[in-house]
Amino acid sequence: MTELKSREIRLTAYPKGLPTAETFEICEVDVPEPEGRAFRVRNIYMSVDPYMRGRMRQGESYVAAFEVGKALDGGAIGVVEQSNNPDFPENTLVMSSYGWREYFVSDGEGLRKLAPIEGASLTAHMGAAGGTGLTAYVGLMRIAALKTGDKVFVSAAAGAVGQIACQIAKIKGCYVVGSAGSDEKCKWLEETCGVDATINYKTAGNLTQALREKFPEGIDVYFENVGGDHLQAALDVMNVKGRIAVCGMISVYNADEPVPGPTNLTQIIGKDITMRGFVLGNHFDMAGDFYRDIATWIREGKIKWSETIYDGIEKAPEAFMGLFEGKNSGKMLVRLSDEPK
Amino acid sequence: MTELKSREIRLTAYPKGLPTAETFEICEVDVPEPEGRAFRVRNIYMSVDPYMRGRMRQGESYVAAFEVGKALDGGAIGVVEQSNNPDFPENTLVMSSYGWREYFVSDGEGLRKLAPIEGASLTAHMGAAGGTGLTAYVGLMRIAALKTGDKVFVSAAAGAVGQIACQIAKIKGCYVVGSAGSDEKCKWLEETCGVDATINYKTAGNLTQALREKFPEGIDVYFENVGGDHLQAALDVMNVKGRIAVCGMISVYNADEPVPGPTNLTQIIGKDITMRGFVLGNHFDMAGDFYRDIATWIREGKIKWSETIYDGIEKAPEAFMGLFEGKNSGKMLVRLSDEPK
Repeated sequence: MTELKSREIRLTAYPKGLPTAETFEICEVDVPEPEGRAFRVRNIYMSVDPYMRGRMRQGESYVAAFEVGKALDGGAIGVVEQSNNPDFPENTLVMSSYGWREYFVSDGEGLRKLAPIEGASLTAHMGAAGGTGLTAYVGLMRIAALKTGDKVFVSAAAGAVGQIACQIAKIKGCYVVGSAGSDEKCKWLEETCGVDATINYKTAGNLTQALREKFPEGIDVYFENVGGDHLQAALDVMNVKGRIAVCGMISVYNADEPVPGPTNLTQIIGKDITMRGFVLGNHFDMAGDFYRDIATWIREGKIKWSETIYDGIEKAPEAFMGLFEGKNSGKMLVRLSDEPK
Repeated sequence: MTELKSREIRLTAYPKGLPTAETFEICEVDVPEPEGRAFRVRNIYMSVDPYMRGRMRQGESYVAAFEVGKALDGGAIGVVEQSNNPDFPENTLVMSSYGWREYFVSDGEGLRKLAPIEGASLTAHMGAAGGTGLTAYVGLMRIAALKTGDKVFVSAAAGAVGQIACQIAKIKGCYVVGSAGSDEKCKWLEETCGVDATINYKTAGNLTQALREKFPEGIDVYFENVGGDHLQAALDVMNVKGRIAVCGMISVYNADEPVPGPTNLTQIIGKDITMRGFVLGNHFDMAGDFYRDIATWIREGKIKWSETIYDGIEKAPEAFMGLFEGKNSGKMLVRLSDEPK
């Protein structure tokens, strides 16, 4: 019997600044035969996400840093191909954190069987109807304590999380403005996602001024994905008792020098502003509510999404690096093998 | 009948950077005869507070800026001297926001009769048993959602608000570390207020290192009065799900250039940190709980306080400026006239 091989992407070194092709290497390993209750999974899609950049450095204990010389990991969908485990028979679709590789063998620990949502493609289960959508949901509903009628600003609004945040806020009866880096993305947000207004931050000039124009009554909730000048401008336009859900700060992830925070942070005092960061891992208790709501919204045609898919594991580094240049429209995925028929 | 005169302190101009003697002028005005339901109050003490610096600039609408050429205002305790109002008879002690002047005439609007707390001096009703104590209480109990056993860091811990925050946190069963700017203040915090450890930030060297030593298990709650390097260091040592109550940022109030925020603000994402600013005015609904608790704690000898009192309205500017040099130990007050016998 020929030995099955799996290609995987390893980290060669912690990058300084923007990761480059040299940050990654592709290696081939043997896939062991599943023994005992183990089974083999063939990955179909893997996710690349901005938060992974934060794991490419010597980390504090609360964030598991990637290990240099080892395969990276992250969200993936695969299919069970060979199994000794009656709980995960062949052809079962599974969600795992074993991305960045073509195959893996598991005893089921930490894996989740895909619970298909009507009207959602397989890829959508990693995006709008998966962890990405849940991130937007947690950020708005818990972290920002969204209320009907809130005036909501979403940065990186055409991004994977941002676009779902915009649409959930609309469903919840809010006024929503999104920022994005091209007119095309802005057009898509207005025409397909139904946001009330958009800002192309690359052409808008003074961002504070642009926000004041779009928010004559001020911002109640800022869903923060960008940091830097976006946070500075939003603080200037936030209302009293405003809430900032800090999901990410992509503008500073690749800095090799420390990036100063906003100069107007004292505004959170006078305006009684709550600014709260979060990572999804601490809020999985909301998954039940989310899957119920998102299934309904997708069935009712209320949630749209875009995705960008690169083909082949060898393209995974390029896909990841593309996140920091805005090369993705929506969720960025890499297809590692064909979907089951 | 001789006309009664009142001296008052006016703002001459919005200061750039640290206020100086030239920022203020003392003027004398006639005190009108009380008419209708009006009565005349002789101020006994007035408060000077760091937040007043924030009102000495062209303000956003949510903070009432002081007006150039007019008397400043702020917390004061006075006594009714001449009254046509049966609700405020002569000799009634009243709390008002008409500080920075010797006398004023009022119809009672916005005034509060002093409700004396057993064991508290008249001055304590402006400090530990007044708005200052309430600020500490709101910041810990509501903004930081303090829990028994929390590891609590208080900056400017010997300051008026800080010292009460330290003691409330101790009463609530927390481990408490305070920072202050002299060994004498640190000693007072440990010996009189019972805090577990202190940091003299002027001699501690690397503040992050100092915090790591005092918080081997990390910080759960940071009661923020200082900003700048204190916030940066605290963020480094905060625990997952930590809470930062931002009461003030005295280190940046007098900057005439914008002061950058912390370079490690992204830590609020991975650590799920909530950072919330507040001003007392939005939280007076907690006053009932506070007055009940503080009366008990003072009666039981569980709350100590220190105060620094300057004499005479002409010293009010000096007292105010002294706040930014740490010349106060605890609450900074100005005595405008004698307490009633």
